[in-house]
Amino acid sequence: MANPLHSPPLTRPSVLAAHERIKDYIHLTPVLRCTYLDDLASSVRSLEEGQEGAKPRLRFWFKCGNHAQALALAAKTMGIPAHIVMPTISTPSKIAATQGYGAKVIFSGSTSVEREAKVEEVIKETGATLVPPYDHPDIILGQGTLGIELQEQARTMIREQGREKGLDAIIAPCGGGGMLSGTALSCEGTGIFVFGAEPSFEGADDCKRGIEQGKRIESVKSLTIADGLRTPVGVYPWSIIYERKLVREMFSVGEEEIKKALKLVLERMKVVVEPSAVVGLAVALFDEGFRRMVEREGGEEGWDLGIVFSGGNVGVEALGGLFPASD
Amino acid sequence: MANPLHSPPLTRPSVLAAHERIKDYIHLTPVLRCTYLDDLASSVRSLEEGQEGAKPRLRFWFKCGNHAQALALAAKTMGIPAHIVMPTISTPSKIAATQGYGAKVIFSGSTSVEREAKVEEVIKETGATLVPPYDHPDIILGQGTLGIELQEQARTMIREQGREKGLDAIIAPCGGGGMLSGTALSCEGTGIFVFGAEPSFEGADDCKRGIEQGKRIESVKSLTIADGLRTPVGVYPWSIIYERKLVREMFSVGEEEIKKALKLVLERMKVVVEPSAVVGLAVALFDEGFRRMVEREGGEEGWDLGIVFSGGNVGVEALGGLFPASD
Repeated sequence: MANPLHSPPLTRPSVLAAHERIKDYIHLTPVLRCTYLDDLASSVRSLEEGQEGAKPRLRFWFKCGNHAQALALAAKTMGIPAHIVMPTISTPSKIAATQGYGAKVIFSGSTSVEREAKVEEVIKETGATLVPPYDHPDIILGQGTLGIELQEQARTMIREQGREKGLDAIIAPCGGGGMLSGTALSCEGTGIFVFGAEPSFEGADDCKRGIEQGKRIESVKSLTIADGLRTPVGVYPWSIIYERKLVREMFSVGEEEIKKALKLVLERMKVVVEPSAVVGLAVALFDEGFRRMVEREGGEEGWDLGIVFSGGNVGVEALGGLFPASD
Repeated sequence: MANPLHSPPLTRPSVLAAHERIKDYIHLTPVLRCTYLDDLASSVRSLEEGQEGAKPRLRFWFKCGNHAQALALAAKTMGIPAHIVMPTISTPSKIAATQGYGAKVIFSGSTSVEREAKVEEVIKETGATLVPPYDHPDIILGQGTLGIELQEQARTMIREQGREKGLDAIIAPCGGGGMLSGTALSCEGTGIFVFGAEPSFEGADDCKRGIEQGKRIESVKSLTIADGLRTPVGVYPWSIIYERKLVREMFSVGEEEIKKALKLVLERMKVVVEPSAVVGLAVALFDEGFRRMVEREGGEEGWDLGIVFSGGNVGVEALGGLFPASD
């Protein structure tokens, strides 16, 4: 990938330019609605005795993002060979999907040291260019294009419902932070608030904790079921999220809340997503702090909340493990 | 429900009239595409040595239908109380979804005798009108409206791809036969072939077997995983499927093929459906007789095949049971 110093500035116009550039090649994923989840989110939760739950009004606009195979597809579209290094323990469905887009999958051990060694080896052998997963300005600008799409698609759909303004806010999951910071850039100056969501299990909420202590946390060892979010937030994303304050607030949720949100999405929206994808929804449904804020600021009218859903790389056996038949 | 003798004639114009009548209340479900499944279906399968697989070209157009909660939703829309009798062993997600549409769920034992006794009791108490699940002309005409929608939606999408004609054929699952016979009526005189799909396990392919022996089979005792298709085909559906020959041919598939198709839909289309929904897709992917026919008749151009997907009432625990983590 190009030297980060030669990348465009990290601003909304750069995201728009990136979107313009890739527009003709995009497989435009839909923005989904689910009135059942709107109703559920807009009902007061039953809390322990003596506690009164928040009364927010929420309408959700779900944007399906899926970056895992995006590189393979982009390479295929442009006729460039792609070599993807994956740990041998990757789910068969993920491997098959990546190969299905024509990429060559190369296996490595599952630690990051083993993976990086294998990547070095492949680069030496093939002369390939390294595409990092999130900590690069170009990646962040590319990820930001999903924020542009979500804003545009939701605005059209909200207008069809007779309301003039677009989204009030967007919430996106945060692992390495590429998608969250890209989304934040895409909303810069629009008045749309951006929030981040992390799993709290075993310290996977490193971005939230880092903000609290005013310093990026550089390593995380969490086995949260939201396995796409086990990575610490990267340097470039951190500069956008924390230093430039383009993300208003980070929220974190527990494993059970992620599982509950996942079950709702599978059974009621009937969309297959991985646990990492639903962390933002779990915040909107179950975090009383978030919900009180929406009640306070959204008032009677409530909020139109964009939720970034990414990704859908889950094998049915992994779902079987999360929800065993004896449950 | 009205006396069947007062129902409109079982013809395509009656289906169109039904569609016109309900049009303003419809939640129009999308027609989905999946190029991965198109490619898979258009590849030669690896068969046992010495056997050569068919080389059909197939493009799929999936129509999501979901009739289980349709009655509850229709009643809610019209402000009419709905009482739904369900076996106590129904999946919690199905019960919750039905209640979510405002219907009163009443529980019965799981045999049809217990269920019918409970239905009688509810009718006596409430003065409610019985809405049968499939064996009534009005139900069949209503189900047929999904065929109209599929034809119209697919035609628009096919035109966008630069081809002028619409669907070549539609395949629909067959349990009681309401949906299959309704779909058949919706295609009458259009030149679109209609096929039916059944599970073969423990004789659940009663319609196929009935056609072979020239007589409707009146009872089935199968525990196929496609649990929506355990019912024998009804009298009215049979008259359309067999006597009027509006269904060109019935196909049946085994449990493993249904499971394979379900896994593909969950993992690659990322849509949650129940096993019954994918029986038509399983035929298109795995039945060599069907595939040879498409190769022969579709030639170079191939077929645009509409696939009726119904329904999506599956709890995550049931999926966990079908695909255990140790798989």
